[in-house]
Amino acid sequence: MAARHEQIAAELRRAIRREEYPVGSRLPAETELAAQYGVSRGTVRQAVAALTAEGLIGSRQGARRVVLADHRSQSFGELRSFAQWAEAMGRTATGHVVSQEYRPATAEDAARLHLDQGVPLLNVLRVRGLDGEPVLIERTVYADWISPTVAALPPDCASVTQRLNEETGLVFAHGEHVIDAVAAGARDADLLALRRTSPLLRVRRVTTTHDGRPVEWSDDRYRPDAVSFTVHNSIANNALVRTTAG
Amino acid sequence: MAARHEQIAAELRRAIRREEYPVGSRLPAETELAAQYGVSRGTVRQAVAALTAEGLIGSRQGARRVVLADHRSQSFGELRSFAQWAEAMGRTATGHVVSQEYRPATAEDAARLHLDQGVPLLNVLRVRGLDGEPVLIERTVYADWISPTVAALPPDCASVTQRLNEETGLVFAHGEHVIDAVAAGARDADLLALRRTSPLLRVRRVTTTHDGRPVEWSDDRYRPDAVSFTVHNSIANNALVRTTAG
Repeated sequence: MAARHEQIAAELRRAIRREEYPVGSRLPAETELAAQYGVSRGTVRQAVAALTAEGLIGSRQGARRVVLADHRSQSFGELRSFAQWAEAMGRTATGHVVSQEYRPATAEDAARLHLDQGVPLLNVLRVRGLDGEPVLIERTVYADWISPTVAALPPDCASVTQRLNEETGLVFAHGEHVIDAVAAGARDADLLALRRTSPLLRVRRVTTTHDGRPVEWSDDRYRPDAVSFTVHNSIANNALVRTTAG
Repeated sequence: MAARHEQIAAELRRAIRREEYPVGSRLPAETELAAQYGVSRGTVRQAVAALTAEGLIGSRQGARRVVLADHRSQSFGELRSFAQWAEAMGRTATGHVVSQEYRPATAEDAARLHLDQGVPLLNVLRVRGLDGEPVLIERTVYADWISPTVAALPPDCASVTQRLNEETGLVFAHGEHVIDAVAAGARDADLLALRRTSPLLRVRRVTTTHDGRPVEWSDDRYRPDAVSFTVHNSIANNALVRTTAG
């Protein structure tokens, strides 16, 4: 069972999502929240600190805090899979395979997965949902050595990453992501229940094992009203990049 | 003057952008490129290594390399200004102010910039270009203590970051970015010479000094055919965070 401050944080998140506290409005003061929930101010402060860390609310302005966003951030620093990320947010990930088939590796597949052109690779089109609502279309190409294991998974497998780990010990260790935006085509629009030409957040990624062996590459398209990405960086974040740039 | 391998890298980038070598095609072998440019294979290798590092081309497949992308991506491994990023790519950043005016800080401005509501803040609408082509619209709100310095800059200042550093010693040290996608409105479409409803890559960010003092916050919209973002992460790295709407 969740600690009391976690329960209060969850209630505040729901209230913000339901726009009881819309973006730009102020939360009640800590003393009011403490009275409302029948807890100490310390407990309220723990709940509020969690929401602040998630970027949902800002620093204190006087006694109260401003609502900054109606959705929260969750780190998936551990290169979290979609299912792991959803779970960390207390939401339920779903998935279903729309189609899967073997196709000969194209030049691009071969380059991204470090394989020979023409090798048969499993191509999977999968729709992922949060609490039953479709939010993501994945078009994934798997390396030949993992393709048979993926092909044998049930079509509604909610966490491919977890199943592959359980069955083969495979660990997805590193990811390289290229992020841009595209207009939804007819197929995308149909699968995500959107209008055609709606903007989608696209992530093309290659995922590798610890020793850099590519496992899969994927073109993922997200409903931007449902999912966004947060990146923190700093001027001195990565000395290696600075050294080799220019 | 640029070194010979840099000139060759620049020519190859242009050829890829002009689709003389489309995505999925192969570059000529190193020996062919060496003959074509009248240089040694070592010089060609230096040029090719630069394009590989930029994600434009893949690892070698036999004697040749596959073209993976037709534009270079902005790495989020490190906080860089638009002008610094353009310069690192050998391209020329331009900028011009479309409008600027003081407006009282909204509740959101106050929360993001840690200021009191109602304080007059400089709001700037700026279009940024690469080699003269408009690729980015910035809608930036500056903290009160830096607003007068920004207001006095020339409207075609190519690097606000550099000018502020020269004039006040200010260093932009940390950035927090939320990335999603939006459809271009009429104004966006006009400023970027696109059709209305075209997908744009949006970054909302807060930039702070070394000690975490917010300097500005901005809604930036990129043409996704001109700019994308690259993020690397791994099991032990917290760079990328996904967020979800309710």
